[in-house]
Amino acid sequence: MPRFNKKRSKKAGLPPGTLVHVGKKRTEKTRITILDYDQTDFREREVKSVEKCFPFKDTSTVTWINIDGIHQIEIIEKIGKHFNLHPLVLEDIVNTEQRPKLDDFEGYIFLVMKMPYFDKENNTIKLEQISLVLGPNFVISFQELEGDALNPVRERIKNGRVRIRRSGTDYLIYALIDAIVDNYFTILEKTGEQIANIEEKLLNEPEKETLHDIHDLKREMLLFRKAVWPLRELVSSLERGELELINEPTRVFLRDVYDHTIQVIDTIETFRDMLTGMLDLYLSSISNKTNEVMRVLTIIATIFIPLTFVAGLYGMNFEYMPELKWKWSYPLVLLVISVTGIFMLFYFRRKKWL
Amino acid sequence: MPRFNKKRSKKAGLPPGTLVHVGKKRTEKTRITILDYDQTDFREREVKSVEKCFPFKDTSTVTWINIDGIHQIEIIEKIGKHFNLHPLVLEDIVNTEQRPKLDDFEGYIFLVMKMPYFDKENNTIKLEQISLVLGPNFVISFQELEGDALNPVRERIKNGRVRIRRSGTDYLIYALIDAIVDNYFTILEKTGEQIANIEEKLLNEPEKETLHDIHDLKREMLLFRKAVWPLRELVSSLERGELELINEPTRVFLRDVYDHTIQVIDTIETFRDMLTGMLDLYLSSISNKTNEVMRVLTIIATIFIPLTFVAGLYGMNFEYMPELKWKWSYPLVLLVISVTGIFMLFYFRRKKWL
Amino acid sequence: MPRFNKKRSKKAGLPPGTLVHVGKKRTEKTRITILDYDQTDFREREVKSVEKCFPFKDTSTVTWINIDGIHQIEIIEKIGKHFNLHPLVLEDIVNTEQRPKLDDFEGYIFLVMKMPYFDKENNTIKLEQISLVLGPNFVISFQELEGDALNPVRERIKNGRVRIRRSGTDYLIYALIDAIVDNYFTILEKTGEQIANIEEKLLNEPEKETLHDIHDLKREMLLFRKAVWPLRELVSSLERGELELINEPTRVFLRDVYDHTIQVIDTIETFRDMLTGMLDLYLSSISNKTNEVMRVLTIIATIFIPLTFVAGLYGMNFEYMPELKWKWSYPLVLLVISVTGIFMLFYFRRKKWL
Amino acid sequence: MPRFNKKRSKKAGLPPGTLVHVGKKRTEKTRITILDYDQTDFREREVKSVEKCFPFKDTSTVTWINIDGIHQIEIIEKIGKHFNLHPLVLEDIVNTEQRPKLDDFEGYIFLVMKMPYFDKENNTIKLEQISLVLGPNFVISFQELEGDALNPVRERIKNGRVRIRRSGTDYLIYALIDAIVDNYFTILEKTGEQIANIEEKLLNEPEKETLHDIHDLKREMLLFRKAVWPLRELVSSLERGELELINEPTRVFLRDVYDHTIQVIDTIETFRDMLTGMLDLYLSSISNKTNEVMRVLTIIATIFIPLTFVAGLYGMNFEYMPELKWKWSYPLVLLVISVTGIFMLFYFRRKKWL
Amino acid sequence: MPRFNKKRSKKAGLPPGTLVHVGKKRTEKTRITILDYDQTDFREREVKSVEKCFPFKDTSTVTWINIDGIHQIEIIEKIGKHFNLHPLVLEDIVNTEQRPKLDDFEGYIFLVMKMPYFDKENNTIKLEQISLVLGPNFVISFQELEGDALNPVRERIKNGRVRIRRSGTDYLIYALIDAIVDNYFTILEKTGEQIANIEEKLLNEPEKETLHDIHDLKREMLLFRKAVWPLRELVSSLERGELELINEPTRVFLRDVYDHTIQVIDTIETFRDMLTGMLDLYLSSISNKTNEVMRVLTIIATIFIPLTFVAGLYGMNFEYMPELKWKWSYPLVLLVISVTGIFMLFYFRRKKWL
Repeated sequence: MPRFNKKRSKKAGLPPGTLVHVGKKRTEKTRITILDYDQTDFREREVKSVEKCFPFKDTSTVTWINIDGIHQIEIIEKIGKHFNLHPLVLEDIVNTEQRPKLDDFEGYIFLVMKMPYFDKENNTIKLEQISLVLGPNFVISFQELEGDALNPVRERIKNGRVRIRRSGTDYLIYALIDAIVDNYFTILEKTGEQIANIEEKLLNEPEKETLHDIHDLKREMLLFRKAVWPLRELVSSLERGELELINEPTRVFLRDVYDHTIQVIDTIETFRDMLTGMLDLYLSSISNKTNEVMRVLTIIATIFIPLTFVAGLYGMNFEYMPELKWKWSYPLVLLVISVTGIFMLFYFRRKKWL
Repeated sequence: MPRFNKKRSKKAGLPPGTLVHVGKKRTEKTRITILDYDQTDFREREVKSVEKCFPFKDTSTVTWINIDGIHQIEIIEKIGKHFNLHPLVLEDIVNTEQRPKLDDFEGYIFLVMKMPYFDKENNTIKLEQISLVLGPNFVISFQELEGDALNPVRERIKNGRVRIRRSGTDYLIYALIDAIVDNYFTILEKTGEQIANIEEKLLNEPEKETLHDIHDLKREMLLFRKAVWPLRELVSSLERGELELINEPTRVFLRDVYDHTIQVIDTIETFRDMLTGMLDLYLSSISNKTNEVMRVLTIIATIFIPLTFVAGLYGMNFEYMPELKWKWSYPLVLLVISVTGIFMLFYFRRKKWL
Repeated sequence: MPRFNKKRSKKAGLPPGTLVHVGKKRTEKTRITILDYDQTDFREREVKSVEKCFPFKDTSTVTWINIDGIHQIEIIEKIGKHFNLHPLVLEDIVNTEQRPKLDDFEGYIFLVMKMPYFDKENNTIKLEQISLVLGPNFVISFQELEGDALNPVRERIKNGRVRIRRSGTDYLIYALIDAIVDNYFTILEKTGEQIANIEEKLLNEPEKETLHDIHDLKREMLLFRKAVWPLRELVSSLERGELELINEPTRVFLRDVYDHTIQVIDTIETFRDMLTGMLDLYLSSISNKTNEVMRVLTIIATIFIPLTFVAGLYGMNFEYMPELKWKWSYPLVLLVISVTGIFMLFYFRRKKWL
Repeated sequence: MPRFNKKRSKKAGLPPGTLVHVGKKRTEKTRITILDYDQTDFREREVKSVEKCFPFKDTSTVTWINIDGIHQIEIIEKIGKHFNLHPLVLEDIVNTEQRPKLDDFEGYIFLVMKMPYFDKENNTIKLEQISLVLGPNFVISFQELEGDALNPVRERIKNGRVRIRRSGTDYLIYALIDAIVDNYFTILEKTGEQIANIEEKLLNEPEKETLHDIHDLKREMLLFRKAVWPLRELVSSLERGELELINEPTRVFLRDVYDHTIQVIDTIETFRDMLTGMLDLYLSSISNKTNEVMRVLTIIATIFIPLTFVAGLYGMNFEYMPELKWKWSYPLVLLVISVTGIFMLFYFRRKKWL
Repeated sequence: MPRFNKKRSKKAGLPPGTLVHVGKKRTEKTRITILDYDQTDFREREVKSVEKCFPFKDTSTVTWINIDGIHQIEIIEKIGKHFNLHPLVLEDIVNTEQRPKLDDFEGYIFLVMKMPYFDKENNTIKLEQISLVLGPNFVISFQELEGDALNPVRERIKNGRVRIRRSGTDYLIYALIDAIVDNYFTILEKTGEQIANIEEKLLNEPEKETLHDIHDLKREMLLFRKAVWPLRELVSSLERGELELINEPTRVFLRDVYDHTIQVIDTIETFRDMLTGMLDLYLSSISNKTNEVMRVLTIIATIFIPLTFVAGLYGMNFEYMPELKWKWSYPLVLLVISVTGIFMLFYFRRKKWL
């Protein structure tokens, strides 16, 4: 919950373009890695100072600069200055409360996306913000954390001889977005399994915890939905082909990512519907169970209360109670009581109350 | 439930166009059948090796190549190579988690659809994925399973002298889609009967199982809906007449399929509404029934508790209780008790509590 | 319920244009009546053989051919042949599971509509399918049953000197659609009265049956809605003026029908909202009533249980219970019991529990 | 409730343009008043015969003819004839079941609107239908009842020297619509107060009546909504400036009315949301209260039932019950009973059940 | 609640452009401050009479006139006259029931917005209305109260050397809107914390108050929503670039504000969904808890009632009850009772009822 706009208020009233890091406080040092490649060559290195990546701005090779950690504002500022990024872009990069979006600027495209990852410490799913800047021959990616979600892309580049090495930055950006969307699939698959587990439990023995599990998953889907709906628009803008930096051959791939995004949305909506259905099922199961228990208990009481009354009747101390003197009274009363009890039992059973 | 994105994660991070079979693991051998016909001639045969169907690519006759089983990736790859299919198309064919869609490529159209079928083993309704590739003089269909849903089309072709033999591949694709949509009707009809049965049961004697039946049908409708909504778009794209491979005379038939699709959607939505209504009805019936039972039981207890008190009163052992000595005390107490009991009974009945 | 797609599956797999009657099985003979008129002349007759209406195809007068009963497929086929109707149109005419729609063909317009009628046998409201074919100088109407809904139009034509006699087939089609839409008003008015009755009952004494009544009306509104929404589109298409067969002066009347259709939809939606509100009201009334009853009963029990305990206390047979010997014990106990009882009564009343 | 389409069926089957008064039966005589003015002159008079207003059709001054009462069909017919109104317009005027709408005819615009008013007799809010005909130099308004809602406009005209006297019929129509929309504000304000009252009651002591009050307000909002949504469209059509009879300077005022209409809709929707929220709150409050009561009562019973058992135990008449002879048995039993009772009390309290 | 349209009815029937203050009655004097600046100079002063700000209308510097308090109608009127504002604009300024909107007039743009603020007196969040008039070289802002929300903008202007000093009135208006939108973030952040608190409480120990807290927050979100949705449109109109007074370079900043507005809406909708989920959770928690309590209590009663019956049985006073004479009867009965009780306890536990 505390994800919502925490610390966002720090920025209220500041002039636009003021860089304020909004997000979880972090202490790790920012890590900068550079991948530079064309069809034949490939270099990868990690640099200590941000200035090291400046020369790549104008080389003809494709360069992917990856920044892990966005809390060191001065680094972001230097990059912004050298690569001519608009102050508002820099502001958005360091503000992790951003909504996914695409902004088309003179000479570069700026993208913000959310990526789900499994936070092992808290055992929950979280969303990390990834910002991408797509230039004519460089791509800069900004991640909140060091993550391995983009590694497959890195591997593919290393392996050479694949399409990615023959293509430009637009294909690289496609590959990155594709990796991010694939992450949603991986996470949703786990969610699907969780839902299946909960459902099974629901049909066998609903428990109190089930309610909270359903509630948590619903909440998660709510967050995902908020993150993926704008993503759809974003990919759609890329694919429509109105952006100069996106070449025609890449568009068929972007259409593919678009389809995946729709599928993610579809799955989220289906999960939401399923969870709602399960909540209803849970509530009525619980209520059914309680009703059943109460009914059985009440029936037991109902059978014995009149019998107790009969017993109480002959426990009265009146002097003139002729029945008390009769020899067969006691067995008779026992008989009456037994018959009444058994009759009630049968009656309730026949009425299907038991 | 486990249908959702199971194994979809296997693909995360792979370059686009990598063929990975996503779906239920199967062991049957892929079965390839070829139907080749024009207005006068007709040949049907089953081939062992995929290469046998290559020559049909450029014949002037209409050829329908049907592939049952998509788990043998090498076969799909060979077909893809020979018929010049885009790697992404092949990837989609072997990924059974696809969303229904139409992609228009240079020289061919690619369609993915979902077809409902009754799985006799598990006694449930499932969705199978069917991919279709429509070329100028060939249609390739890829099915997950050997199924008989497309048989009627095969029969019609065999019978000769019907429109299908006089028409091209666009009419064949129409016939296939029509057969798939007709399948929905058949399945929905069964669902309709199930709903009618459940409803009848609901009005007579609602049971615990009814809840699960309704829940299952709701889930089924959810899946159908997810499969049919995009189908509508797909058929609409075919019918709009912007695709070169679809001839004018076929479009009136596609409009007919479009109407059917809308009708399927309408029926699904109506079923959903009906099921929701039935769920409400069930819940209030159950709650009504429980309330009734509890009320009757409580009334019985309520009548006897005060009577028991009276009896208890005269069961006290005080020495100085003059009533105990009186001759008519006992009959009087019995009278009081009876009158009180009967009065309460009447009172509750008049208040319509009983 | 059994209305949904019953027998629709009979058609699965047949080539398009195959005539299969889908609907309630009927045995009556098809009845064909012809109305032929222009501004001066008027002829009405019932013909035994379908061929008798063929000559009217090309006369300059306006001809309305009405077919009551669509289960005799050979008749429909003959008409289709003579009037050059597309096979798909014929298929739609005999399939009573059609969705309301308008199809514009070369030389004629085809319309399918649903008309509500009160089925006296089953005491329920049903929907009958009416198909209309509008040609340049003829209108053919196909009804499932012999009905009197279109009689007013017939009367108006007979009476001469009204606009309908001066106008062409487009005005006739308007008059027929108007009669059908008016039928909705008549039926909805009855529904409105039923709703008012139920509501009154709801406020005075909610019963178990009320629930089913509300449920039935909701179901009815669901069916109406499914029938009227596409009707709106249909009328809108007619009115937009893109159809050659509709003349300008008729369009202002069609706009009027369009308004009526919107009003029907509005009323249906309002009824739906009202019924949902009533369902909520019913449920909470019932639950309120039960709670009240239970509370009163529980209070009675609660008052007597402690009193019974006191009585039981002095029913114990210990030898050394000094109170038992005291003279005023019994009256005292009686007093304590009465006071306790009365106090509890007052306490519960003051707490507004009673 | 009986408002819906009551008597609408009277019209079924009649040719279009047949005047049938649909609405509450009335007996008052129709009242016709004429306001004729330009920048300098002003005349107001009530006329007995409808023919008196005919000469104003072609005068250059602005004339507002107000008809209170639409049940005298012959008057409406005469006006229709003289002012060349389309038969459908007349039909709509006398049919009080109309949906708000704007129809643009050759030479005049026809508007139907609903106006809320407080019916003092029944102490409820009702909707009255007002039809307006806007000609180049006359406005005819038709009201169901003599009402004072349009009086402010009349006063403004009388007062001279205001914009309304300098402007044409388009400004007059604006002023009338504005007065009608203002009426909604007045009524909604009262509703707002009612909602505030109910809410206060809800938080302090929810009663059974509250449910019906909320239900009634919800119903009212439903009716308002049905009346105001089409009003929005209507005003929007006027404002868009495609109508010849509306002059440019008036449009800025119409935009203002448009804003007001949106605000009315906003308020209605907010009220609906609030009422739904209040219904939920009411239901859970009631259910909370009942649960609480039941819990307390059950706890009392639960405490005394075991105690009664103990007492019953020593009321048994066995000869060999050594405890009965012991001297301290009785005080001991009393002690045990007291301690058990108190212990249970504490236990329940600690568990927060009491 | 009493916010809705309170006093709005005062205006009903008045001619448009009549200034009537609609809103909370206030007594403070209106406070007028002027900020006049260009890139080099800066003057700030508070003026006593409204005429003092008239000369700034035509100076080349940027002037921001801020009016705190709109209840002194004569001041608003004077400003309106001098700055040539349309009477409807003035009417809107003094009517605090306005919906956020943008009106484009000849020579100036008029904006109405709602700003949330924390009312310390009542400890609740309220919405204040801010109206802005944007001229070629002046901006006039009208606030209901003296507030500090716009102070940051004032500070930035004072500080010189920032973009705001180099830009025109369009940038100033951007800065003001940005400050207002930032206010929403600040308030929503607090709401987010409240939601987190409530949720924590919900999971640990749900209380009656929780219901009201959730209800209040839902209500608040409803109001916010009503205020922010039209704000989105407003900012979008500014950004689209169809307004002459907005220069190209400012639009990128407006796009940024637009993104923020969308984010505010997103957050509000997410909060609404979360609150609905929490309400469901609360209700089922409460119902779960009650059910549990009732079950335990009923079980206690159910165990003791049959035991009491057995005790009652041997409390009967029949002369011929052989068991009463037997020596081991009493211990045997005790044994039977204990065993029965323990058996029931185990049975209920095994059935998971306890």
